[in-house]
Amino acid sequence: MRALVKETAGPGFRLKDVPEPVIRDDEVLIRVRRAGVCGTDVHIYEWDDWAKGRCKPPFVVGHEFAGDVVQVGALVTTVKEGDRVTAEGHIVDGMCLLCRTGNAHVCPHTKIIGVDRDGCFADYIAMPSTNVWHLDENISYDVGGIHDPMGNAFHTALTAEIPGANVLVTGCGPIGIFAVAICKVAGASRVIASDVNPTRLALAKRMGADEVVQPGEAEARVMAATDGYGVDVVLEMSGVPSAIHQAFALVRVGGRVQMLGIPAKPMDVNFASEVIFKGITIYGVVGRRMYDTWHQMTRFLRSGEFDPTPVITHRFPLEEADAAIAAIKSGEAGKVIFEVA
Amino acid sequence: MRALVKETAGPGFRLKDVPEPVIRDDEVLIRVRRAGVCGTDVHIYEWDDWAKGRCKPPFVVGHEFAGDVVQVGALVTTVKEGDRVTAEGHIVDGMCLLCRTGNAHVCPHTKIIGVDRDGCFADYIAMPSTNVWHLDENISYDVGGIHDPMGNAFHTALTAEIPGANVLVTGCGPIGIFAVAICKVAGASRVIASDVNPTRLALAKRMGADEVVQPGEAEARVMAATDGYGVDVVLEMSGVPSAIHQAFALVRVGGRVQMLGIPAKPMDVNFASEVIFKGITIYGVVGRRMYDTWHQMTRFLRSGEFDPTPVITHRFPLEEADAAIAAIKSGEAGKVIFEVA
Amino acid sequence: MRALVKETAGPGFRLKDVPEPVIRDDEVLIRVRRAGVCGTDVHIYEWDDWAKGRCKPPFVVGHEFAGDVVQVGALVTTVKEGDRVTAEGHIVDGMCLLCRTGNAHVCPHTKIIGVDRDGCFADYIAMPSTNVWHLDENISYDVGGIHDPMGNAFHTALTAEIPGANVLVTGCGPIGIFAVAICKVAGASRVIASDVNPTRLALAKRMGADEVVQPGEAEARVMAATDGYGVDVVLEMSGVPSAIHQAFALVRVGGRVQMLGIPAKPMDVNFASEVIFKGITIYGVVGRRMYDTWHQMTRFLRSGEFDPTPVITHRFPLEEADAAIAAIKSGEAGKVIFEVA
Amino acid sequence: MRALVKETAGPGFRLKDVPEPVIRDDEVLIRVRRAGVCGTDVHIYEWDDWAKGRCKPPFVVGHEFAGDVVQVGALVTTVKEGDRVTAEGHIVDGMCLLCRTGNAHVCPHTKIIGVDRDGCFADYIAMPSTNVWHLDENISYDVGGIHDPMGNAFHTALTAEIPGANVLVTGCGPIGIFAVAICKVAGASRVIASDVNPTRLALAKRMGADEVVQPGEAEARVMAATDGYGVDVVLEMSGVPSAIHQAFALVRVGGRVQMLGIPAKPMDVNFASEVIFKGITIYGVVGRRMYDTWHQMTRFLRSGEFDPTPVITHRFPLEEADAAIAAIKSGEAGKVIFEVA
Repeated sequence: MRALVKETAGPGFRLKDVPEPVIRDDEVLIRVRRAGVCGTDVHIYEWDDWAKGRCKPPFVVGHEFAGDVVQVGALVTTVKEGDRVTAEGHIVDGMCLLCRTGNAHVCPHTKIIGVDRDGCFADYIAMPSTNVWHLDENISYDVGGIHDPMGNAFHTALTAEIPGANVLVTGCGPIGIFAVAICKVAGASRVIASDVNPTRLALAKRMGADEVVQPGEAEARVMAATDGYGVDVVLEMSGVPSAIHQAFALVRVGGRVQMLGIPAKPMDVNFASEVIFKGITIYGVVGRRMYDTWHQMTRFLRSGEFDPTPVITHRFPLEEADAAIAAIKSGEAGKVIFEVA
Repeated sequence: MRALVKETAGPGFRLKDVPEPVIRDDEVLIRVRRAGVCGTDVHIYEWDDWAKGRCKPPFVVGHEFAGDVVQVGALVTTVKEGDRVTAEGHIVDGMCLLCRTGNAHVCPHTKIIGVDRDGCFADYIAMPSTNVWHLDENISYDVGGIHDPMGNAFHTALTAEIPGANVLVTGCGPIGIFAVAICKVAGASRVIASDVNPTRLALAKRMGADEVVQPGEAEARVMAATDGYGVDVVLEMSGVPSAIHQAFALVRVGGRVQMLGIPAKPMDVNFASEVIFKGITIYGVVGRRMYDTWHQMTRFLRSGEFDPTPVITHRFPLEEADAAIAAIKSGEAGKVIFEVA
Repeated sequence: MRALVKETAGPGFRLKDVPEPVIRDDEVLIRVRRAGVCGTDVHIYEWDDWAKGRCKPPFVVGHEFAGDVVQVGALVTTVKEGDRVTAEGHIVDGMCLLCRTGNAHVCPHTKIIGVDRDGCFADYIAMPSTNVWHLDENISYDVGGIHDPMGNAFHTALTAEIPGANVLVTGCGPIGIFAVAICKVAGASRVIASDVNPTRLALAKRMGADEVVQPGEAEARVMAATDGYGVDVVLEMSGVPSAIHQAFALVRVGGRVQMLGIPAKPMDVNFASEVIFKGITIYGVVGRRMYDTWHQMTRFLRSGEFDPTPVITHRFPLEEADAAIAAIKSGEAGKVIFEVA
Repeated sequence: MRALVKETAGPGFRLKDVPEPVIRDDEVLIRVRRAGVCGTDVHIYEWDDWAKGRCKPPFVVGHEFAGDVVQVGALVTTVKEGDRVTAEGHIVDGMCLLCRTGNAHVCPHTKIIGVDRDGCFADYIAMPSTNVWHLDENISYDVGGIHDPMGNAFHTALTAEIPGANVLVTGCGPIGIFAVAICKVAGASRVIASDVNPTRLALAKRMGADEVVQPGEAEARVMAATDGYGVDVVLEMSGVPSAIHQAFALVRVGGRVQMLGIPAKPMDVNFASEVIFKGITIYGVVGRRMYDTWHQMTRFLRSGEFDPTPVITHRFPLEEADAAIAAIKSGEAGKVIFEVA
């Protein structure tokens, strides 16, 4: 089968023919239809410091996908051939302290597909049946293929208290834009979205943002909209140090900052004035809560009020991986996906 | 001034001329514009057992209103003449264990206007300045006048976790209908509203219910909509014993039942099968959380996605109190208000 | 092997020779050392209406135990021969909405050992490896054998907020007494324990109750100890209707009632005055949270401040099942256990 | 009367004769008996950058105290002459968004006694009656005089989930030591306390710490005690950058870091590895929750299991302010108090 492979410890992916995965008794084989491309894939493509420290080539890249089940292992009872599915890409041990107390998303033994084992930028992928998530009939493969980053956004937004809240979303990449839409559907009073890129701001506006602002305007607009208190909740989706400082500055005292964006390196923080004297709560977001977040996603999609499809702006075949990566790096893209089959 | 007075220990109200209230230094005087009529007023009008046990005539009736501040006491700093306001009708001591730990809504020393002291079915009412709530410029007196029952609905709905939830609302009086709309704005996946009255169901539908059902259909429809699990949350707004049993039957295991409707008398409950083995949580709703609920109301109104005005179906002058009470008793009304001035 | 069997649809157990269980690949075989006898076992013994409706003889009775692993299935990686263990007796599907959102304790597909499949009043029992819980070296089989009811008590107590709380425990059977001790270790300000039986009250006192009272004295003592507010939390462990009414009467407004005791039949409740106007929260307790409760138990045992052993008052060999049941029915016993091996 | 006054914008305090405070109608006058000396007082004494930016001399210093009410204003109904009291030193507006939603501890309009207005290092202090807290008869002035820092510790500890938790307390100043004792009373499974100072560690041990460690030993001891997971909760009480990094390193994934200690200046943080990928929650602690924390303190004192008196290591008359400040600066002191009268 075709697969985008990280072959060696250096930049780039290579599309090549590899054997189809052989499934274990508790796994299923899935024909991949759509696969989302993520910033993590860019790190692996570019072979940056994080990638060097984490990944061990060769392996098939990709962790966001949807497709059809074509084979099921002997022990599998909850999935059958022909099921239309997506999957949680974090494969956890299920038995540790974290898994056993509702925190599997931070299981210390997590293996991520496309990072720690073979991923989904390929014609087929093997997945443990417990990680498989069924798609409703009316959910497209496109939407199925981006459940992973949508889930990041749901996790980030819905672990804060959104109904009635004033919310600032710093960073309008695909996950930030999903979060804008989720907050509006969940009854946020006002959602202000901030980014440097006008294309992304336009998309955030289309997805429901009440106001879209350049970072330099954010303080004035937030204070005007909140009687000078600042917002109740900031969703920090950029990882940019100046945006993180702005998150701490523009959240109201006693408010909440959800941190999903990953800063590239250490940064100066004034804990006294930015965190402690403000009495705020900070929450670090990892993956998706398993499987509360997945149920929430399905519920939001069923309500008909959340539609992520406008966020998908670029589509490529597997053969055009370099172009897909370039689209993300341009900073102009919403969600980029592979049309695998 | 004119006032609807409960004069003696017997049925009815009497419209009569009474002296204007004299305010204390920490109070304000408010010119009443609109006043909502509530089931509680019906109890007082009819002089039922609850009213007999609680109220001490003579007193001015009415506890839901909006108007203009016309005079402020010497110690008042947060309200000024000309302010457009409504008010929390529960006057609490502010210093007890409950008031001091975020539970002022159940302060044991609560005095309710129109029940324990003079109320708002009158040209003027005196209120402690701490109970006054300012209305945004674009909020009408009509909407201001029904903040009290809207607040009951907000309290009932938003102390459950609504984003993504399947919700059953049993009882579509005005508060139930407000709750339907609130749940939809707050991102409920599906809201099913139940009542015996087609007029009320039509109003619930108009305010956003995904399905409206007769109680006899509720079980089938709930189970069909929830893969047989039952709903995550029931908002019990009727006080009818059969609806309460249905709440316990149709909430999923581990779910939550918010009880606002007041049953007229004791009823048989099978705690084993209805509550304990189901592992559910029940929450008794009193008034409005002070003042979290009020902030939530203002935030929902500001978002522009919650508009309670279609629920107001009847308007009367103070002179037609008997007709106003009759409209509520008919079971056909949404919210009934007095146009005082 | 020896096993206490519910042979037919009628009263009593029969000790007989049965084949050792054959384990599946994902199960382990455990040599039972100690097994706790529970009120549920009495229901099955007496073959009351609940038992008739739930159980299908013949089956081996018993669901509380500890012992040694003597054989492990081919797929088992987390348990090994020689491990000293106890187990969660609720076998759940692991994949449903409840299991996937932290509520496995109310999984609708639960099978309980000793109720829905063969139990532990026997020399050996087969258990899925995922249900096995390891015992620390210094934890005796006695204590291991009563983790199930201890877990009921931990679940009941620690899903309320106990540090600094005034607590009333109504019903001092073994689970109630465990709960008394847990609340004291968890920093309750004052724990008042109520029961009709002086022996049980003496045991509650020994396990840390600040006051022990007859039900008739409870109101006066609670009000004296709480400045007339009532307690913050009631743990209702009796299932007796008068105690349930007392729970609602003696919890403060805005407080919390945890219901574990199972009333035998429906009872009259005045939801208006007992629940709604009091603004309380009621929580129905089922089993143990999987596996938060189990981790809490192990942590409390490790701290050295919680020792349940004084609650064990009676020990019998499997051969004296009738005497064990009689001891429980006397109402004078603390925890009754079988010394199996 | 005598008062320790910050007279001018420079180092030191001056004991001088000043007029007794004149109370307003809603205030009370309190004869100060004991007053606690705090790190904040040292900042003001030394006139560091924080003090320069915040304080406006001249004013009477001191914010922790207990004493007797000697005069009450005309509007005061809840306090009377002769009452033995302490007080919350944060004077808030009571009407803002924060005050009205249970977050008065971060009211943006807070005035702190001894910082923003005259304080308690004097024979008398005027306090709003709403800030006064009554002492139980058996609570000494010594203990009353340190309710403010005890409250910091209660706020820090009890806004985390302590029953059954493994806890690391970094920094064993008086507040850290109080927190150690609170966590033990509240059922922590294991409390490890860290500090560089052996005297303080000995005091932490005396107050209940299961282990006391030098910072250099903390990692090894924490990992050994927690099966390598790290602790569930860190209470960061030092403000030392290396301790803050250790807090992030030694809390388990998904755990909670409560930050009370104030770093003197900005510091480098790796949000990716220290916060986000760990999925932790950080909470900035300000003052005491008003008045949940105060009720918790009273409840813990009533239980008889929490006794802070061993933490008081130094006592001085007002005349020896320089010695009191020196004792704190030595790093060897527990709690330092003035015996005012």
